[in-house]
Amino acid sequence: MKMLKDKIVQEGIVLGEEVLKVDSFLNHRVDPELMRAVGQAFAERFAYAGADLVLTIESSGIAPALMAALELRVPLVFARKQTSVLMQDDLYIEPVFSFTKKQQSQVAVSRHFLPDGRNVLIIDDFLAHGEAALGLARIVENAGSRVAGIGIVIEKSFQNGFRKLTEAGYRVESLARIASLRDGNVVFADGE
Amino acid sequence: MKMLKDKIVQEGIVLGEEVLKVDSFLNHRVDPELMRAVGQAFAERFAYAGADLVLTIESSGIAPALMAALELRVPLVFARKQTSVLMQDDLYIEPVFSFTKKQQSQVAVSRHFLPDGRNVLIIDDFLAHGEAALGLARIVENAGSRVAGIGIVIEKSFQNGFRKLTEAGYRVESLARIASLRDGNVVFADGE
Repeated sequence: MKMLKDKIVQEGIVLGEEVLKVDSFLNHRVDPELMRAVGQAFAERFAYAGADLVLTIESSGIAPALMAALELRVPLVFARKQTSVLMQDDLYIEPVFSFTKKQQSQVAVSRHFLPDGRNVLIIDDFLAHGEAALGLARIVENAGSRVAGIGIVIEKSFQNGFRKLTEAGYRVESLARIASLRDGNVVFADGE
Repeated sequence: MKMLKDKIVQEGIVLGEEVLKVDSFLNHRVDPELMRAVGQAFAERFAYAGADLVLTIESSGIAPALMAALELRVPLVFARKQTSVLMQDDLYIEPVFSFTKKQQSQVAVSRHFLPDGRNVLIIDDFLAHGEAALGLARIVENAGSRVAGIGIVIEKSFQNGFRKLTEAGYRVESLARIASLRDGNVVFADGE
């Protein structure tokens, strides 16, 4: 997606070989027009899938997922992150390990808003090791629903998340795929 | 705003005299069409104000604020909540007391994304005691910018947030104003 890649080149900040900061348009300041285009791109790529719900995770997933849900004309559910161990009967809870924060947290979705028999499109801002997306997928399947696909704004293709998700049988569509962040440069996977 | 009030009547859950749960369309599951209408309503009510930035707070503020920012064609910044005491030179940080959680937390915005001389529209999902909105307003003013106005999706008018914000000189526009939650019933402030 050209508009997104241009923005990454112009405003992304490479911090070491593994971290790309995109706080200026995705994770802290948000570019609404770019989010609309991102939502439209997800809706096109998953048009075939017949999703009837979009699921994401707070907070940075909400903007792109909302625009995808708006375009697909389906509801959005955002999972809550919680670091305390909390068990509640009316929640689906899955542990998720964050490699960035070196910390295990929990992801929770109310059972009321994830009934069985749904076809759920998972959207997230970043794909690195795939832990968050796999946690959301487990929640969808524990609820007796199906993962329609996984849409990612920025994939760090040099980490193993994409492989883990596709090996688990999920179709992953990433709008920007980054092959390398070496020497402070962003190299996209499709050679652009 | 009729669409919003209808949704509150149909799906809101009154828990005691002070708590209204709107998890089904605002705080956990999100209704994208309603959020679009909410964004349009904010844009209309603040059209005169010439805001050049929308500021909200994660997570539930993001959806309505994104749609307002999209409509106004300005960037969105969402403040981060943090419970740990963290001081960083490049952040504006304000303490905010949550009456619901009986807990002090901190609200943080990067200095990079809140330059001086801006005209900032603050958007939040709920107005109760006004602590979050006041914290955001202090951050805007500490940055040398101006509060263009404060837009609230649901105001609990029986609590003192509206009074505190207007006494501090801010113009507040709430799309639904709730006068009472007594006896499990939602009574709107405009008598509807």
